[in-house]
Amino acid sequence: MDFKSFRKYGHELIDWVADYMEKVETYPVMSRSKPGEVRAALPADPPNKGEEMREIIEDLDRIIMPGITHWQHPGFFAYFPANTSGPSILAELVSAALGVNAMVWQTSPAATELEQVVMDWLRRMLDLPEEFRGVIQDTASVSTVCALLAARERLSGFEINEKGFPVWPAGEAMRIYTSTEAHSSIEKGARITGFGGENVIEIQVDGKYAMDPEALEKAVEKDIAGGLKPCCICATVGTTSSTALDPLTRIGEIARRYGIWLHVDAAFAGSAAILPEKRSILDGIEMADSFVFNPHKWLFTNFDCSAFFVKDPAALIKVFSIDPEYLKTGRDSEVTNYRDWGIQLGRRFRALKLWFVIRYYGVDGIRDRLRAHLELAQEFRSWIEEDPDFELLAPVHLNTVCFRFHPEGSRTSEKKLEAINQAIMDGINASGKIYISHTRLGGRFCLRLSIGQTYTTRDHVTGAWGIIREHARAAKR
Amino acid sequence: MDFKSFRKYGHELIDWVADYMEKVETYPVMSRSKPGEVRAALPADPPNKGEEMREIIEDLDRIIMPGITHWQHPGFFAYFPANTSGPSILAELVSAALGVNAMVWQTSPAATELEQVVMDWLRRMLDLPEEFRGVIQDTASVSTVCALLAARERLSGFEINEKGFPVWPAGEAMRIYTSTEAHSSIEKGARITGFGGENVIEIQVDGKYAMDPEALEKAVEKDIAGGLKPCCICATVGTTSSTALDPLTRIGEIARRYGIWLHVDAAFAGSAAILPEKRSILDGIEMADSFVFNPHKWLFTNFDCSAFFVKDPAALIKVFSIDPEYLKTGRDSEVTNYRDWGIQLGRRFRALKLWFVIRYYGVDGIRDRLRAHLELAQEFRSWIEEDPDFELLAPVHLNTVCFRFHPEGSRTSEKKLEAINQAIMDGINASGKIYISHTRLGGRFCLRLSIGQTYTTRDHVTGAWGIIREHARAAKR
Repeated sequence: MDFKSFRKYGHELIDWVADYMEKVETYPVMSRSKPGEVRAALPADPPNKGEEMREIIEDLDRIIMPGITHWQHPGFFAYFPANTSGPSILAELVSAALGVNAMVWQTSPAATELEQVVMDWLRRMLDLPEEFRGVIQDTASVSTVCALLAARERLSGFEINEKGFPVWPAGEAMRIYTSTEAHSSIEKGARITGFGGENVIEIQVDGKYAMDPEALEKAVEKDIAGGLKPCCICATVGTTSSTALDPLTRIGEIARRYGIWLHVDAAFAGSAAILPEKRSILDGIEMADSFVFNPHKWLFTNFDCSAFFVKDPAALIKVFSIDPEYLKTGRDSEVTNYRDWGIQLGRRFRALKLWFVIRYYGVDGIRDRLRAHLELAQEFRSWIEEDPDFELLAPVHLNTVCFRFHPEGSRTSEKKLEAINQAIMDGINASGKIYISHTRLGGRFCLRLSIGQTYTTRDHVTGAWGIIREHARAAKR
Repeated sequence: MDFKSFRKYGHELIDWVADYMEKVETYPVMSRSKPGEVRAALPADPPNKGEEMREIIEDLDRIIMPGITHWQHPGFFAYFPANTSGPSILAELVSAALGVNAMVWQTSPAATELEQVVMDWLRRMLDLPEEFRGVIQDTASVSTVCALLAARERLSGFEINEKGFPVWPAGEAMRIYTSTEAHSSIEKGARITGFGGENVIEIQVDGKYAMDPEALEKAVEKDIAGGLKPCCICATVGTTSSTALDPLTRIGEIARRYGIWLHVDAAFAGSAAILPEKRSILDGIEMADSFVFNPHKWLFTNFDCSAFFVKDPAALIKVFSIDPEYLKTGRDSEVTNYRDWGIQLGRRFRALKLWFVIRYYGVDGIRDRLRAHLELAQEFRSWIEEDPDFELLAPVHLNTVCFRFHPEGSRTSEKKLEAINQAIMDGINASGKIYISHTRLGGRFCLRLSIGQTYTTRDHVTGAWGIIREHARAAKR
């Protein structure tokens, strides 16, 4: 593509993007596409001759857009948000154009050093311990794998890395502890890294869905008595289902007492700790060995961008470092080469978008937006609590409300309640006006509304409440 | 950022990008930044108040750009290319703006279905076996981890996933075979997945740096005789040092004979197989269980985009599938949920840029560009061969030339030749005009010139040859 065409279509697509941002509310939030529909509209074979950008953009509108679920719609209340912002999108454009690989310092010094700077900024914004060192990974799943590997190697004295699991006594399985409410990536990570899913011990939770530290300590002691080796505790700050907060201080004390690696997964909730009044969710973090939160969820930074911190980067580097001739540079002894901080060798220049976002909004501007989301969630919670036909199913610590329709006085069975609420959710999502998701807490099927889209305002939340009540009323009839 | 400002700065940054593309040759290819220089120019604390985009863009120019090594400079001949193109950059802009998470079908049907379509297109473009199914991963390192896990679980009957390595008899270590020239990600992957680096058996190479299949078979038989379990062969098509081509057909026959998973790493070279006259580099691929190549290297698609194919996706899905309530959707039985095809749960909408690139250039247009690079490499090779002061150190199969300055008639020691060539390389890279890298082949230090940047023309390659000879002459004096 010649530079003139790039300029022409670049301007056109900037307008396309700006128009999209302006009109996103005219789309149904959840795509109404049927399975196979997009695929059927596309040729099975690639074109031999090049096509005009004009045609490609037309097909983007005609074929792709109807198949998009609009995560940037202010009515997106499903899962956790993956919000974004103007400065983040523009930084991604610049990063794509520069196309640098931040694998070693020399292959773009600014990419490595800006990553160090913005990770230090995040450390300060979250008031994390001074000694934590940060690296940007793609996802919390990968950050967790990194933590599990560092824990595994610290326990094995870096022997499994070299000799593999056969070196480890079969009867002394390494054990990972996490709560029954922890994210599926913990078990997935345990499989990937060879611990095995069965060696992830799910610790029971209390009435607020937070890990019970007494049960944790008992599980650890039982394992030790049985000759098994406690390796890693994965505590969660802000569980996926209900943003439950594991008690880090008590868990950290147990980790220290038994010499177990403590990894803290705050993939979603970490952003909240930027607010002084919410920083207490990380009380005890000084006892953690590693910590992850995802700016790509709730920090206006487009996917992917996962902030991973470790107390002892030397251990992480020892896990990942391999030094083939073709990757050596004359600067290796003086600089940070992030290729040794994770699984991937190739690394995108992700620091740029964090830098754009933090500078553009400033810490105060970010706090204002996070506070607005938290206040809206509390307001929504109050509506649920005040309405006799609805039931709140978990404490609202942050931005996410778990609830269900449960008509007053009804003696409806759990099974029937589930069917009704599932039908309400399906109806709401099919309406296209908002998009919510579900989970299960204590066996009960919950609707789940998570407020964190960049452009969500009070009007969108009152609108959502109206839609939910309307669909619930219809279900009642 | 309001939409009006987004539009204003969006247009400004499109021009910034277009200007960058036009003037990229005015920058030194390898950044001249000193360690710590970029960092020192940035404040240690994040700003409390938001800043103007104007200031951020000024600092991008003033602080960041001097620290960029220009991978998109036509004088970038180092490593392997990570090239890009106008349509790819524009698709990345759109993808960042849509900000969808392609974790499950429902969270954006078009993202999943377009991924299926473009991966099928690539399968046809490379003439891969019909039954191969594709998924986009971020890097070949991660694709290789996926292959190793699938191999591990096939051999263990999915027992290690569940019960961990302790279930596996200690004396029967699982073994991985790859050549001495294979990429470091194989050993890294073996560590991550619990095999251990020592269970990666490095098979000797022939005079062309390709794996010796007889040595492979002997190693397999020796392991079997010793009670060890051959698990996976990682063959390389286009090694990192010299683009050597492992003989897939003979390796594949051994894999079949002993029931070993065959993974083919063509991370760089895969693109060449799009050329009918080069498709033979993949002869034997029908015997592979998995295959990876990176469109983000040499297919005009900006980083990251790794194309991973498997013959039996059910095995891959069985490795990765975990099904928590909060990720279930009503469509799960009818659709592909790519979250179960890899490590990460969250997934960027990467298919869009492949779709833009393949449509914009067409298969013919892509072939023309790849051919031009291959022809330039052959021409450069001929100059090396014709110059009595230079020595070719490996066959030039594709776009990469390994050579060194070796003055005619000199009886310089290997040690001194290395020092001279290192100094030549450092001088060339410090000149800022071109950027080359190095490797080691058969113990000898080689200079390495890899031609694959989108805008590299014959003039750039003749220019590079001039610069190399000039620095070599200076070294001779």
